[in-house]
Amino acid sequence: MKDVQKFKDNRNVDIQKVGIKHFELPLLIQQKYNKENQIVCAEARVSVSLPKDYKGTHMSRFVEVLTDWQTKSIADFEIKKCLEEIISNLDAQSGDLEFLFKYFIPKKSPVTQNTSAMSYKCSFSGEIVNNEYKFTLGVVVPVTTLCPCSKEISDCGAHNQRAFISVRVSYDEKDGCVWIEDLVDLVEKCASCEVYPLLKREDEKFVTEKAWNNPKFVEDVLRDCVVALRKHPLIKEFEVDCEAFESIHNHSAWAWQKEVK
Amino acid sequence: MKDVQKFKDNRNVDIQKVGIKHFELPLLIQQKYNKENQIVCAEARVSVSLPKDYKGTHMSRFVEVLTDWQTKSIADFEIKKCLEEIISNLDAQSGDLEFLFKYFIPKKSPVTQNTSAMSYKCSFSGEIVNNEYKFTLGVVVPVTTLCPCSKEISDCGAHNQRAFISVRVSYDEKDGCVWIEDLVDLVEKCASCEVYPLLKREDEKFVTEKAWNNPKFVEDVLRDCVVALRKHPLIKEFEVDCEAFESIHNHSAWAWQKEVK
Amino acid sequence: MKDVQKFKDNRNVDIQKVGIKHFELPLLIQQKYNKENQIVCAEARVSVSLPKDYKGTHMSRFVEVLTDWQTKSIADFEIKKCLEEIISNLDAQSGDLEFLFKYFIPKKSPVTQNTSAMSYKCSFSGEIVNNEYKFTLGVVVPVTTLCPCSKEISDCGAHNQRAFISVRVSYDEKDGCVWIEDLVDLVEKCASCEVYPLLKREDEKFVTEKAWNNPKFVEDVLRDCVVALRKHPLIKEFEVDCEAFESIHNHSAWAWQKEVK
Amino acid sequence: MKDVQKFKDNRNVDIQKVGIKHFELPLLIQQKYNKENQIVCAEARVSVSLPKDYKGTHMSRFVEVLTDWQTKSIADFEIKKCLEEIISNLDAQSGDLEFLFKYFIPKKSPVTQNTSAMSYKCSFSGEIVNNEYKFTLGVVVPVTTLCPCSKEISDCGAHNQRAFISVRVSYDEKDGCVWIEDLVDLVEKCASCEVYPLLKREDEKFVTEKAWNNPKFVEDVLRDCVVALRKHPLIKEFEVDCEAFESIHNHSAWAWQKEVK
Repeated sequence: MKDVQKFKDNRNVDIQKVGIKHFELPLLIQQKYNKENQIVCAEARVSVSLPKDYKGTHMSRFVEVLTDWQTKSIADFEIKKCLEEIISNLDAQSGDLEFLFKYFIPKKSPVTQNTSAMSYKCSFSGEIVNNEYKFTLGVVVPVTTLCPCSKEISDCGAHNQRAFISVRVSYDEKDGCVWIEDLVDLVEKCASCEVYPLLKREDEKFVTEKAWNNPKFVEDVLRDCVVALRKHPLIKEFEVDCEAFESIHNHSAWAWQKEVK
Repeated sequence: MKDVQKFKDNRNVDIQKVGIKHFELPLLIQQKYNKENQIVCAEARVSVSLPKDYKGTHMSRFVEVLTDWQTKSIADFEIKKCLEEIISNLDAQSGDLEFLFKYFIPKKSPVTQNTSAMSYKCSFSGEIVNNEYKFTLGVVVPVTTLCPCSKEISDCGAHNQRAFISVRVSYDEKDGCVWIEDLVDLVEKCASCEVYPLLKREDEKFVTEKAWNNPKFVEDVLRDCVVALRKHPLIKEFEVDCEAFESIHNHSAWAWQKEVK
Repeated sequence: MKDVQKFKDNRNVDIQKVGIKHFELPLLIQQKYNKENQIVCAEARVSVSLPKDYKGTHMSRFVEVLTDWQTKSIADFEIKKCLEEIISNLDAQSGDLEFLFKYFIPKKSPVTQNTSAMSYKCSFSGEIVNNEYKFTLGVVVPVTTLCPCSKEISDCGAHNQRAFISVRVSYDEKDGCVWIEDLVDLVEKCASCEVYPLLKREDEKFVTEKAWNNPKFVEDVLRDCVVALRKHPLIKEFEVDCEAFESIHNHSAWAWQKEVK
Repeated sequence: MKDVQKFKDNRNVDIQKVGIKHFELPLLIQQKYNKENQIVCAEARVSVSLPKDYKGTHMSRFVEVLTDWQTKSIADFEIKKCLEEIISNLDAQSGDLEFLFKYFIPKKSPVTQNTSAMSYKCSFSGEIVNNEYKFTLGVVVPVTTLCPCSKEISDCGAHNQRAFISVRVSYDEKDGCVWIEDLVDLVEKCASCEVYPLLKREDEKFVTEKAWNNPKFVEDVLRDCVVALRKHPLIKEFEVDCEAFESIHNHSAWAWQKEVK
């Protein structure tokens, strides 16, 4: 049976990335506060480089490696090993890999201390280019923002809304680990108030008043995140995106920052 | 060239609906306050019934009819004619048709009276079954809701958020016309406050205080819509869906009602 | 602290459904071929009816019940118990509940017999109205369809594409159980060919030839599903939706059927 | 009334981007083959930089400028003027702007020459940083790809599918104009076959055979695009993304390239 992918190509185009996208698989994610792994449903994007001489890459090999990794316990460090296996099996020079998944963290309501699971969109990304490995952890954290201007100028009330703070951080996994739980925690502290899955009346009173006493523009949320991320001992590079789904408009207020230390 | 669709089928299944989905086309929509039509980008779903004897329908004919209708000015009445043409060209007994589109309505900010366009998701749907025609108009209206419980129990502030009120109404187009503009208007009055594309500071003060003085649960919004729709002289059947993207949770509060007068 | 929800309402509107939507939670799903449960990330929609006298429902109680059910092993039968608990805790007369989730089933490639996990969108829905319980199981199954017309009229080749067959079935859980695995199996047999996560070259040859020898319109796929579902001993009611993402168009071919036996 | 945005900030964070997102507006787009503008429904994202001394930006000014531009005829050149106005009105140093919209191009079926409108997702993006302006035009083009490996190894047939080729190109608008129509045309030539809104049987035979005689991996499509874009006299920088929704899998094959000349 012919291997069409190995046919010679003469268009003189070294392909930077070729692979698969929107591949769904179960994964085992290491948790900070629980020795058991959390089983998640992930969506993978994987690619390698392809030299100009070859017509195509062997797509099924990506699936084979990803299938092997479904039973392994994963955090930052394992992304590198998985990616090295992909690059090796595809005879490639460089590659990248991204897993997107919802991750549950138990969250206690602030007054009644009722626990319920809250989900966060997370990502583990790795790339190897010129034998250099770079890992990036991403979290999307829903929060409340309450508008300082609306509060200041109005006789009563202040508009507030759900906002998403998306943070992506890179660090050297040899220096230590940034847990999803810790990054979510750092981000939640930067909002007017956290959001919760379960709030009884005493809790609702608490979060309403906390947001009221802590008004923040998307600019404020962004700056507080930036200040916290600049101080973080492990993080070498970060990107922050804060989008507030304004309750007085049908569009969002938005702020964005990317820094390399 | 063989007409495979006309082949005989012997599985004994009269098909209820067969057609096309996610077909994008420009349409000309009649406006209440402007003699010119509004040009919109619509997504169509069209289907007809297919008797058990025939293997398939002729999909290209749907596209031919829809292409003809791109230059005609459309409101409730024309949906019937378009659908009759589809049913006739496909030699069918029954059929249905739905156009989804974003429709812009100029909206004045409440104090400074600045005008800007605000978009609403709308739908025109029609079906003909047993020679009976039924038309349904749908609008999705973004609004603000402010929580009565949060306001009552807290020393200061009250959580509020963007909510979507989706209303679908059926009426006999021979009795008169329900304009998109009027249905949006009816719905916006049922919220804690309307949302606007453009708000200067004086406007922001106004909407903040208006929502504060007008606290509503999704239950309240739903009931106010139901009361208004029950009273409407033309509307014979309606469905209301109110979803509030709670600013204190990462999930929605939701209420729903469907009534036939 | 006041219970605003218990305030008297005098608008004379019995609310049909009020509850929460887009609530994410982990669930344990019973599997046919594995004694261990599968842990999934589900999205819940839950509602109850609310009599006209009461201003509001108690939203946090939905979250409390759903939180309790996160550690229980779930199939059709447990949906009823969960729903009864919700209706009881909310002092309601009727209610409904839907869980949407991705469920993985190991799938062997047809020739090389390589196993990899394939995900299917599934749903468990239940409603209790007038003390009558109705359960509905839903699956969305990606498949290949190959066009009989294109094959017949062309000198070579035939267009084919990915299609989604969505099936929802109701049955009396006291009569027995319809497993997700079995319903997926029934549906996959109705397509031109199944799709797989992992295919080596021998497998790719097999699926290409199988689809070629098995051309089907969406009408054919729908009819084959209808025939199989009519014959099923447990299923009392079904809905089938087949949408093919045509490779020669940017829109879909679509067929739909709903039957009560 | 206080101007809270002008309050002094002392966190020492110059914000890179702050503005609004998901703002919907009608726009008038210049067309190559028609003197009249095409009216589209666009989604805008606009931002400016904000110096560390200021607490916030004035969000309503973005909406004011965008509202003014709704009646102007827009192509690459006008994006610069719109962006300059935004930067000036916000007293900012840098800014960026993106409009996303569906744009219709009349398309003739290949044999019967029936014309119908086909929609393409397009984007106009501009940024001004350090007084340097950069414009980027984006198009997403649906096409057919037919797998060379599947064709080669199978006794009959070959799997094929819809694929999206997304191309973004930057050029100096003073050198000339790259029309949406021309960029779509360049991209469509790189696929196994184009897709069409309206195909009669003679056309369906033609596209089936054309794809069969023109098998291409995503790697082939990408390389053909890269070769054509390298040769283009105006384009100075480009990004190509080709994603094929494989008809034999539930995931995509994907290739990506970015080059600066």
